[in-house]
Amino acid sequence: MKTRAAVAVGAGKPLEIMEVDLDGPREGEVLVEIKATGICHTDEFTLSGADPEGIFPAILGHEGAGVVVDVGKGVTSVKKGDHVIPLYTPECRQCPSCLSRKTNLCTAIRATQGQGLMPDGTSRFSIGKDKIFHYMGCSTFSNFTVLPEIAVAKVDPAAPFDKICYIGCGVTTGIGAVINTAKVEEGATAAVFGLGGIGLNVIQGLKLAGADMIIGVDVNDDKKTWGERFGMTHFVNPKKVDNVVTEIVNMTKRGADQIGGADYTFDCTGNVTVMRQALECSHRGWGQSIVIGVAGAGQEISTRPFQLVTGRSWRGTAFGGARGRTDVPKIVDWYMDGKIQIDPMITHTLKLEDINKGFDLMHEGKSIRSVVVY
Amino acid sequence: MKTRAAVAVGAGKPLEIMEVDLDGPREGEVLVEIKATGICHTDEFTLSGADPEGIFPAILGHEGAGVVVDVGKGVTSVKKGDHVIPLYTPECRQCPSCLSRKTNLCTAIRATQGQGLMPDGTSRFSIGKDKIFHYMGCSTFSNFTVLPEIAVAKVDPAAPFDKICYIGCGVTTGIGAVINTAKVEEGATAAVFGLGGIGLNVIQGLKLAGADMIIGVDVNDDKKTWGERFGMTHFVNPKKVDNVVTEIVNMTKRGADQIGGADYTFDCTGNVTVMRQALECSHRGWGQSIVIGVAGAGQEISTRPFQLVTGRSWRGTAFGGARGRTDVPKIVDWYMDGKIQIDPMITHTLKLEDINKGFDLMHEGKSIRSVVVY
Repeated sequence: MKTRAAVAVGAGKPLEIMEVDLDGPREGEVLVEIKATGICHTDEFTLSGADPEGIFPAILGHEGAGVVVDVGKGVTSVKKGDHVIPLYTPECRQCPSCLSRKTNLCTAIRATQGQGLMPDGTSRFSIGKDKIFHYMGCSTFSNFTVLPEIAVAKVDPAAPFDKICYIGCGVTTGIGAVINTAKVEEGATAAVFGLGGIGLNVIQGLKLAGADMIIGVDVNDDKKTWGERFGMTHFVNPKKVDNVVTEIVNMTKRGADQIGGADYTFDCTGNVTVMRQALECSHRGWGQSIVIGVAGAGQEISTRPFQLVTGRSWRGTAFGGARGRTDVPKIVDWYMDGKIQIDPMITHTLKLEDINKGFDLMHEGKSIRSVVVY
Repeated sequence: MKTRAAVAVGAGKPLEIMEVDLDGPREGEVLVEIKATGICHTDEFTLSGADPEGIFPAILGHEGAGVVVDVGKGVTSVKKGDHVIPLYTPECRQCPSCLSRKTNLCTAIRATQGQGLMPDGTSRFSIGKDKIFHYMGCSTFSNFTVLPEIAVAKVDPAAPFDKICYIGCGVTTGIGAVINTAKVEEGATAAVFGLGGIGLNVIQGLKLAGADMIIGVDVNDDKKTWGERFGMTHFVNPKKVDNVVTEIVNMTKRGADQIGGADYTFDCTGNVTVMRQALECSHRGWGQSIVIGVAGAGQEISTRPFQLVTGRSWRGTAFGGARGRTDVPKIVDWYMDGKIQIDPMITHTLKLEDINKGFDLMHEGKSIRSVVVY
């Protein structure tokens, strides 16, 4: 079949809207009509050429929602007409990682996914004789795409595609970091570095978890209002204080505890200097600092080991520690039940032919999330 | 009163055996006759001058065992004749840290302890008009010493002082890192970097916890026999393999899990390069790497944040995460019940006048633990 898609023809080049050939689903695969897709910083990271593992030409996009329109042989968990969210972190429920109960990082199709291919080692996308690569196992910048059955989460069919597509990455990453990775408890103190889309979702995750103090940290004062909208209780602009670590340590001195430090901190910036600050303003004895942001190629984090020996833990999370098929449908339900917000974060809705405008809005810092609706 | 003690008169100088004046216990304090004390690398770290917080003149030593010979006003938890182990990490059971249930790092007397003083801001030790400082709140290189009540653990009076003194630091640090900090479960794989006294105690902790693979790592092949004595199942000499990280990742591929990496790794070297190796050979998705060793002043650890984002945790531990008054008596009982070994690790027993020989043996790598018996 043919599908309309935005093709990444090379690093640093704008996406090109093209008619692309798409092979139908093979065994264990499903064909999905993508109805909406968010534009995420990770797409930008790859498109810019900064991602050392980027492969071109490819169809980017990994934050979508759509409808199953065909299924390959042996597919049992979804059927035509089901509403689904593609999963760049699949959940096979059979590999050592899935069975470990300790991680969401399913390894069933990791190797081929990293190569831009389906699990059988081939691509379903092409233009004439030229192969086009898949991306993060999703390629949601295509109106139709093929996915392994283990890489789709079946969700409430009443949920609006142009909102829940954001659950395919940003929402789950932020909320999941709080509830799955950090396992924040009621009454906790927390600091969130970087109030972009991920940071705001961390904030609403912290509110959901019942945190007492939710400190947002951003160099842009305009983000204060954004943070407050989702539950932030305090704001720090690091440019306006002497030392952001000392500031947060002092802010979190409460009652008998005059040591200070946040119980949980989250880096949502990808900046390795900020990652260190996030660790070092976490509480002596038990502070956990969770790295969510993706750093540039070759960059390293560092600290004095004393920070760890005195009880801080430096951790990280991918896809919010969420098991896609199990947890993503729950987050859709939370949205439908009004437990979490998404609508105000979708600042721009675009047509596919305007997708490059979505990247421009991101570069200019004007969007929280731009969504393409097919 | 007078007591015989080994005084650290200055950085880099041998200890001097002297008669020292000792004031009796004030309110909330106890006078302890030290019967035996281990010589630990931390004493050496301070004596050498490498410890930026070292204070002289002082009476070092923090790994002792003895008998309560007098108690100050208000002391209720111990009495004359009780056998005790001094605690450099006290347990007040009332500060926010003790009450947090998340850390053993009691903060009740942290400030004064760091200044080499008792909680009231004074020292009990002097020679004439010259003040001699306490060390780590213990000063076990003195035949008699004064300690806060919250800094002594009452233990089984049948236990031999010249063995259980080691529980005052090394044994508890190693075993505690496994059971309190990492909470290693049966069937786990683990790698232990550095097979000195701490590393060997980590190994016996792992055996106690039922780990499947206990990989010891040391540049000295002679340590293989030592490791095996306490439960080590595999040995790696990093000088004899291309890449110690790859080696351990490959060794830990088991059954369906062909990703590899140890579930738990422990740095017992204090070398920041080794700390990085320990992190990076821990298992993707859930590996925990625990820093136990103390790095030199100003040294930093570093890694790519990708290591954390893909599920590894970088953590640390002090005094094995043990609450001194609660957990130390249990470890003494484990020794008395034969659940753990100490005797073979005590390689040298010395008189106080030969204490500098104990430091020499450490420098020469000839001792696991030297113990001074009064």
